[in-house]
Amino acid sequence: MLALNTATLGHNLDGHGVGWSSEQVIEACAERGLGGITFWRREIGTRAVEIGNRVRAAGLQVVGLCRTPFLTGPLAPPTRQGVIDDFRASIAMAHDLGAPVLTIVTGGVIAGSHSITESLKQVQDIVAAMAPEAADAGVVLALEPLNPVYGGNRSCLVTVRDAVDMCEAIGAPNVQIAVDVYHVWWDTSLASELKRAGKHRIAGYHLCDWMADTTDVLLDRGMMGDGVADLESIRAAVEGAGYDGYCEVEIFSAGNWWKRPPGEVLDVMIERFKSVC
Amino acid sequence: MLALNTATLGHNLDGHGVGWSSEQVIEACAERGLGGITFWRREIGTRAVEIGNRVRAAGLQVVGLCRTPFLTGPLAPPTRQGVIDDFRASIAMAHDLGAPVLTIVTGGVIAGSHSITESLKQVQDIVAAMAPEAADAGVVLALEPLNPVYGGNRSCLVTVRDAVDMCEAIGAPNVQIAVDVYHVWWDTSLASELKRAGKHRIAGYHLCDWMADTTDVLLDRGMMGDGVADLESIRAAVEGAGYDGYCEVEIFSAGNWWKRPPGEVLDVMIERFKSVC
Repeated sequence: MLALNTATLGHNLDGHGVGWSSEQVIEACAERGLGGITFWRREIGTRAVEIGNRVRAAGLQVVGLCRTPFLTGPLAPPTRQGVIDDFRASIAMAHDLGAPVLTIVTGGVIAGSHSITESLKQVQDIVAAMAPEAADAGVVLALEPLNPVYGGNRSCLVTVRDAVDMCEAIGAPNVQIAVDVYHVWWDTSLASELKRAGKHRIAGYHLCDWMADTTDVLLDRGMMGDGVADLESIRAAVEGAGYDGYCEVEIFSAGNWWKRPPGEVLDVMIERFKSVC
Repeated sequence: MLALNTATLGHNLDGHGVGWSSEQVIEACAERGLGGITFWRREIGTRAVEIGNRVRAAGLQVVGLCRTPFLTGPLAPPTRQGVIDDFRASIAMAHDLGAPVLTIVTGGVIAGSHSITESLKQVQDIVAAMAPEAADAGVVLALEPLNPVYGGNRSCLVTVRDAVDMCEAIGAPNVQIAVDVYHVWWDTSLASELKRAGKHRIAGYHLCDWMADTTDVLLDRGMMGDGVADLESIRAAVEGAGYDGYCEVEIFSAGNWWKRPPGEVLDVMIERFKSVC
């Protein structure tokens, strides 16, 4: 089952010029027979209930919401209370939207700590503290390990191994992981770590490709088939571990795909999903 | 024991403007009480015997030589024979220089293969084939796993785990690994993987730092202490596995350290080695 992460269309509302409203995105996905959509908070604003209902009325599902604030590191809110408040707001939005999954990008290494271990511990403490509130709201928290290139500033959580360890340490059924091709394509231990995670710890699978000569590690993701990731093996590892949810396409591509008409991007993504994933 | 990788001074001869000859580098390292130097092939040309003797006459050791050609991927020589010929030339240079260690940067994913596994297998085949020639020349081949951000084009070998696996699969005593802070700082399994490698599989330890907000993943490495790596823990992991060789400083920094006078860079690097490593 194929889902769209709206980042693939340049977040549709964030000024990259493609300019589709959330309603247009929903309609275009429904027309093409997609199963669901994952949104970003910036697109939702105060319209969470309205947009969620619109998705379901179109015969689609809300797959997830991106995302909590960064919890640690240079990009996190400056105070712990600021982190908690925004974390709580993201849970509330997921609930109102009817999104079953809220993605966590942990944030980087705590400034001055020189310690990825201490940073991971702080992430774990915050997620453990928020897990019951998320559970009450019917929301799964998905820890998404990011490519190690982001380890300094965006995510001290950089491997599936560490994400599974953190899930186990927290021990809450609604704290799970998300697996993104861009972040894990290089990891030869992926299949065994996902087996260790097990079906009930995998909340999402995100598709794109890693370009061999990537020009920008933030905004130069590839369309499936254009890069070097072994998409068949990665999907086999995810589904071999029991995952049977959506394959969600999430492509940040300021120089290429965000410049194209959104309908064309959707059409190519559907074709590639069939041919190479 | 502290050693200099000449990359830290902008490769001294490659036109970045700092302009020290190999002789000046040797003299400056000897004056400051360093233990040894690792060179790059581009600096050596046809003077391997002469430069090696010069190093030893100054009371220093040649620590290593960078490096073999890329063996796979888009940056490798276009034919297998071309790879072998240049690999052989690098072994000969290491021998003539008196360098006990020759670093291998594997090269990226084989074009069109979409398979990091197949690419690693090809690397393994080539290294296994060349290991006896290296042994005859008295040269250790050091497989250096690179940060996963280079996985597509520069190194399909991106984890210590995979490097140790490859050493074990090849089974030649002179095929070992090199550990570089820039490439492994994020890996929470580092200590256990290095223990698995064992003392006799660790041929080098390279120092620098990972900048939290790195601007360029090739040429923006940090001086020790300026980034987020846990240098004390990493060194403890390397030495805890039995490594007792040089700590070799290797900093690619086009925007900062390469613009400074080489003597200043050496002085700062010595001070930081004492204070934060």
